[in-house]
Amino acid sequence: MQIAILLYDRFTALDAIGPFDTLGRLPGAETVFVAQTPGPVRNDAGNLGMIAERSLDEVPNPDILIVPGSPVAHAQFEHKEVLDWLRAADATSTWTTSVCTGSLLLGAAGLLRGRRATSHWLALDALTGFGAHPTGERVVTDGKYVTAAGVSSGIDMGLTLLGRIAGDRAAQTVQLLTEYDPQPPYDAGSPDKAPADLVAELRAQSAEIMK
Amino acid sequence: MQIAILLYDRFTALDAIGPFDTLGRLPGAETVFVAQTPGPVRNDAGNLGMIAERSLDEVPNPDILIVPGSPVAHAQFEHKEVLDWLRAADATSTWTTSVCTGSLLLGAAGLLRGRRATSHWLALDALTGFGAHPTGERVVTDGKYVTAAGVSSGIDMGLTLLGRIAGDRAAQTVQLLTEYDPQPPYDAGSPDKAPADLVAELRAQSAEIMK
Repeated sequence: MQIAILLYDRFTALDAIGPFDTLGRLPGAETVFVAQTPGPVRNDAGNLGMIAERSLDEVPNPDILIVPGSPVAHAQFEHKEVLDWLRAADATSTWTTSVCTGSLLLGAAGLLRGRRATSHWLALDALTGFGAHPTGERVVTDGKYVTAAGVSSGIDMGLTLLGRIAGDRAAQTVQLLTEYDPQPPYDAGSPDKAPADLVAELRAQSAEIMK
Repeated sequence: MQIAILLYDRFTALDAIGPFDTLGRLPGAETVFVAQTPGPVRNDAGNLGMIAERSLDEVPNPDILIVPGSPVAHAQFEHKEVLDWLRAADATSTWTTSVCTGSLLLGAAGLLRGRRATSHWLALDALTGFGAHPTGERVVTDGKYVTAAGVSSGIDMGLTLLGRIAGDRAAQTVQLLTEYDPQPPYDAGSPDKAPADLVAELRAQSAEIMK
């Protein structure tokens, strides 16, 4: 079982590491970070380099494909090699997954047409442009396509899929070892729960946030 | 404001990235990954390299110090240069923090004597060996020392400290932008909640897990 996590310029680190340290603990699986060019890939804020061990060509047939998001995920729409790889990898994958605006990349590759999917709350509407049906759920499974909402939701997605593949006990083991018993200090993690004026403010700034 | 995140051989990625993508979004702060030797540092499973941009010597006085954990955190007890740096950095820090077994490194550096602190649930007892008073809380603040429980708790720690430093609105903004509205698929994230036989099994294997 091979899990491939796509890295690209200005990806969001937690989008990748959430599923990595949950689903990536799948017993017997090999997880590999891939990118157009192997080597260090910078995150969204430019203050972290994570290493892609392999090029896209070197990992043509992962069993599980994980696409993290980025405030500038749309910049990857111009990278034909990335979209071609997504389509080719998806053709043989068992599961094709995304976190946050990673779903826009799956959409741009034509993989979400007619499917229920999710994304970062500020990017949900953009999914319709790819023929997908956005939902407000945190983790959406439609066939082999599993999309997660913004950034931190990749942890919930990773545990959900781990349970689906390896059983409840395996997923509970990883949940307990990662001590995932969340106690956020505020109840502001979704647009339904956060202060309305904060939601409005961020919506107004979304062109700036997702530049 | 400078935030330093310590990397060392076999650190746990989510321990570092949880606070990085929350507290690290502190407006105006610079976050830098540091290690004994700059360059790629491998994670616990050996399947990820994250880059430490600077050596310990190059970052002597961070305002906020973040120490992630590792199943082999104790291996760092032999690294005098690391413990010396922790002591020196702590002497001028505003906040000294840890995630998971990172608190054992703070303890080994002599920084938690007489203080309330926490760690990964499998490592809590080890804190007493450093004169600390372990608690079962997820995030423990004692003066300027903020310690978090296992792995994923660094997200809660990061948001808590962000709120303390920059105010509730700043922390809620980051929580909403990271869409941290957790919906774990199981309620198994702490030894109080997970199936008792699973807790017992992992306790029995703890010497193997924390080797």
